[in-house]
Parts: sequence; structure tokens; C-alpha cells
Amino acid sequence: MMGGDHGLEVTASGVSLALDRHADLFCTLVGDEEQIAAVLNPAVSGGRYEIVHTSESVDMHESPASALRFKKDSSMRVALNLLSSGEVAASVSAGNTGALVATARFVLKTLPDIDRPAIISALPRAQGHVHMLDLGANIDSPAAILMQFALMGESMVRTIEGIERPSVGLLNVGSEEIKGSEVIKTANELLKESSLNYVGYVEGDDIFNGKVDIIVTDGFAGNVALKTSEGVAQMLTQVIREEFSRGLLTRLSAVITAPVVRSFSDRFDHRAYNGAVLLGLNGIVVKSHGNVDGVAFSHAIDTARLAAQKDLVGHIRHDLEASQVAVARTAPL
Amino acid sequence: MMGGDHGLEVTASGVSLALDRHADLFCTLVGDEEQIAAVLNPAVSGGRYEIVHTSESVDMHESPASALRFKKDSSMRVALNLLSSGEVAASVSAGNTGALVATARFVLKTLPDIDRPAIISALPRAQGHVHMLDLGANIDSPAAILMQFALMGESMVRTIEGIERPSVGLLNVGSEEIKGSEVIKTANELLKESSLNYVGYVEGDDIFNGKVDIIVTDGFAGNVALKTSEGVAQMLTQVIREEFSRGLLTRLSAVITAPVVRSFSDRFDHRAYNGAVLLGLNGIVVKSHGNVDGVAFSHAIDTARLAAQKDLVGHIRHDLEASQVAVARTAPL
Repeated sequence: MMGGDHGLEVTASGVSLALDRHADLFCTLVGDEEQIAAVLNPAVSGGRYEIVHTSESVDMHESPASALRFKKDSSMRVALNLLSSGEVAASVSAGNTGALVATARFVLKTLPDIDRPAIISALPRAQGHVHMLDLGANIDSPAAILMQFALMGESMVRTIEGIERPSVGLLNVGSEEIKGSEVIKTANELLKESSLNYVGYVEGDDIFNGKVDIIVTDGFAGNVALKTSEGVAQMLTQVIREEFSRGLLTRLSAVITAPVVRSFSDRFDHRAYNGAVLLGLNGIVVKSHGNVDGVAFSHAIDTARLAAQKDLVGHIRHDLEASQVAVARTAPL
Repeated sequence: MMGGDHGLEVTASGVSLALDRHADLFCTLVGDEEQIAAVLNPAVSGGRYEIVHTSESVDMHESPASALRFKKDSSMRVALNLLSSGEVAASVSAGNTGALVATARFVLKTLPDIDRPAIISALPRAQGHVHMLDLGANIDSPAAILMQFALMGESMVRTIEGIERPSVGLLNVGSEEIKGSEVIKTANELLKESSLNYVGYVEGDDIFNGKVDIIVTDGFAGNVALKTSEGVAQMLTQVIREEFSRGLLTRLSAVITAPVVRSFSDRFDHRAYNGAVLLGLNGIVVKSHGNVDGVAFSHAIDTARLAAQKDLVGHIRHDLEASQVAVARTAPL
């Protein structure tokens, strides 16, 4: 199910694609029933869906406080209520990120030993992909919170990717002077003392070179890194197209190289990586980009389905308990 | 002149290239005389160079405090002394960034009304380029410091690029919740009230889409954005090469498309953008990447030469005074 605000056609198309792909999937669509019915083909994938009507929606520029207080019958809030009561196994939204984080935190509550949820997503690499968190759920992140992000990220990558001991890096900058940031230094010490497979500081260019499986950072730097990488990829793709449209010989060669360019585009299709997970809550909440097409939205649904099937929340809860036991054991008596 | 620690062959090759390119250039090389003489062809460009011997050098992992205190005969320190005394017009270094910032600040002092120097560099875009600061000179940057960065960046882009009213954006993140950061909010207000051509908040993907001429940010986020963009560009270039080496037909087409790929590589050749400027000091200090070749190092020398010819420091000093007068005029009596 989903509360999304970026055009119901996109949501409907994404739901159709995901239902076609997964015979075990059932979608509960939360929103204006009439509008949803108007865009959704009722015969879609054997009718494995239902609509829950809501009268309100959260505006893309609405403050989290306003959404929490005044939008109790919004698609976002009702979808999260259904998740909280166990009527659905996961929730997908393309709505206002700030409102989603605040509402999810209020409705679902954070897991024991977790103070704040974090947004995590996979990013494409030359080989495989890397997971980065936090991508923008938090204003600032003290060292203890960065440590919580690392524990949750490790648990997620083990659960979803099947990597037994994923490697963890802490995002920092190269300049020695900057390395003085107390928050980063303290987080570095906490990570070194932990049972995680921690490799130390990494820099922005290490996100994509395969050095680590998980990058831990605060929400500001994480969001900047994510958006910057998207901006560079878009620019370079555009420039490649421009270069191939110059001159006749080049345009001819573009026909021959079309499969190469397509293969390149497929490998770095951001749509395949759409669907960031809000980690640290009592429930699976997936955030889709706001400005995407149906293919991208269907991948966010795939992410939610996989997380539910693998019992992501149960695994994180278990791993956090185990790490607390380890901390208690090593603590002085 | 330069104090560099990344292999004298690279420095020597860069000096040769720059001297060949500019008949008006004279280079003072600061370092171990014997080692420099061993790698530099004495006939290079009519001998428009001299060597100043120093006995020490700053280690790449040395702390700024240690460099300041114990390396008074280092190539870095002596080069900056020559700049301070007016014996050279600009200084280029490929050494330890933290030590360079601290030593330059100590030797040259900051300009009036400037509390901290910032690192600024041009980054390639599909059309032209964008300037971003700070790229890592500072640990954290309160709102008033971000405002100083904006004033210096504007003055530099006007002086060097000839853009009369370059547009300025403040790097932020999309999530409404995050937009609550007090530092960013306050800086936003200061920038709105200023005489700058301020367009408001920008996000990571706006760095490369041509939205603004100058991006203002703190040293941590700026460095993360810079390194991330380099990482993505490297990865995509590698993947393009891989795609073109698959299969016979593709390899054949690679021959035809070689000029396209080369044109692409040329447009985004990071070497052409090597040479970040330390703004806010009584002197022109250019920082070269540590791990580059002679071509890249020669571009850092080009940047220093251009900044000296255009009297960058004089213009910034003048523009800062003018903006202070403007502030004084609009201040309540």
C-alpha cells in the first residue's frame, strides 16, 4: 500500500508492474477511492488489491508538525496505521519525506535502543552496490546515533543481501584539520570498539569504489552525497548523448553502440535503486523518490516486499539485542 | 613556486609544461636543491626558474600544529614566506592540506573582515563550470562564516571569470525536517539581506545542472560533495570502457567512437580542474591535488598565474570593503 502525492497514474502503473512481477503480492492502495479507481485498471493482476479511502493528503511542502497534527485522515497517516495494526506487512510512500519520518516515528515508534530512524538506500557501483545511511532523516547525528545507524545498517545488509559480515566505513573528509570533528572522532572510537566489521574512515570517492559495503554518515552529508552522485550521473549521461549526436559518422556509430549505451544506462538506472528504507521503526516503511515513473515506483514496492519477506524488522531487533548483550558483557562490573 | 610532496618528477613535469605555455611565467622551486636539479632539465624553457633550497618537508600525515611548530625550514613554510615578503606573486602546493591552510593563515594572515580562509575550486558542468566553497579548510562554519565565503566567492568569480553578478546558492538538503538546521537558516537570512545575486537553497544535484555559478557550503559537506562527484565520474568512465571492450562488434565500434569517448574524457578531465584556491588570505595560495600527474600540476600553476595577473587578492579586499560600507549604510543609526 502507499500514500503518494506525485500523480496517481505513476502509483497505479507501479502497482500494476509489481503485481505482475510477484504472484504473492497483495496491494492495499490508500487514498482518494474515486481518483484511484479512475486510473487503476480493475482487472490488474487478478484483482490482488484493495482501496482504502482517505479524505486528506499531506502536501509536499507541509511541515512535519502540521502533517502530524492536522492530517489524521491523510493517506500517509492511514497507511502507517494499517502497518501498525498489522493489516499490511510494509508501507511505501512517495510523499513528503519530513512528514513521513515524523509520522512513522509517531505511529510506529522506534525499536528498543534506537533513538531516531535513519534513511538507508542502495547505490549502484561498478560491481554490486553499496548501502548508505542516513540520507536525510535527521538534522544532526551525535556519535552514539551514528553508532546506532551502523548497527542497523549492518543488520539490514546481512538480512537482505546475505553478507555475513558486511564492512562498514564512516564518512569523513581527507583534510587532517577537518578530521578533528569531535563527533566523527568519537563515533570512530565507538565503531572500533564494536563487534562490527569496521574498516575506518572513508571519503566521498570511496562510496563507489567498492571499499566498503555500508557507509555511515549524518543526514546532511549523506543527502548531499546522494544528490551529488545523482547530479553527476545525470550530467554525464546527457553529455554522452550530446557527444554521440555530433557529426554524421558519430551518429552512425551511435547506432552500432546503442546496445553499449543501453547496457550502461541499465546498470546505472536510478529507477532500479528507487526505494529507500526508514530503518529503526517497528515496521517496514519504504520511501520512493517523489519525482519518478511507474517502473521506479514498482522497484520501491519490490524493496518493501523483500524486506517484509525477510523479516527485516525482526532481524534488526534481534541483532540490536545481541549487541546490547555484548556491550553488557564487556562493560565494567 | 611550490612545496610539494608527491614525487618531484610530477612537479618538475608540471613546471616544464607551464613554462612552455606561458612566456611571462617565472617559477621559483622550493625544496631539496639536489633532488630538484636531478629531475629538472636545466634547459627547460630558457631557464625561467630558480631553486630555493630547504632542508625539511611537511609529511602528508603530519598534524597542522606540528608542521607550524617544527617545520620552519620546510618547502611549504619557506614558499609561503617568499609569498609574504613579495618575492613571488603566488604559491602552489601539492602538500598536506591541513598544514597548508594552517601555515598560510599563520604566515599570510586573513584579510580584514575574514575570520577563516576557505578552499574554492571550479567543477566541470555540461556547460561551463561551477565554483564551490568551502571544500575542506574548516571543521565547521557558523552562518557569519558562510556569508564571508559567499562574498569572497562572488568577488573571485567576478574577477577571474568576468561574470558581473554571479549567482550564489546555499547547499542544503531536500527534506523539510533537515531544513531546520539553525546555521543554514541563519545563513539563508544573511544572504537574502546581502547585495549578492542570491538564488536561495540548492541541493547536491544542483551543483551540476547550471542553476548557480557559486555554491556555498561548510567544509565537511563541500568536501564530501567534491569527492563524491569525483568518485562517480571515475566509476562511470571505467564502466564505459568496460562496456566498449565487450564483444567483437562493440570493440570494432569503439574504434569509430574513440573520438567521442576522447571528447567526453577531455570535457571532464579532472586534471584541467586541478588547482583549488585558498581564499581569504593576504596572498594567492593554490592547492594541487596530491595524487596527480604533471599535466594536472601545470593546471594548478595556470590557476595561480591567472589569479596573480588579475590581482585576485586586491579585488577581494576591495569588494569586502565595499560590502562593509554597504552594511554600515544600511545599519540603523
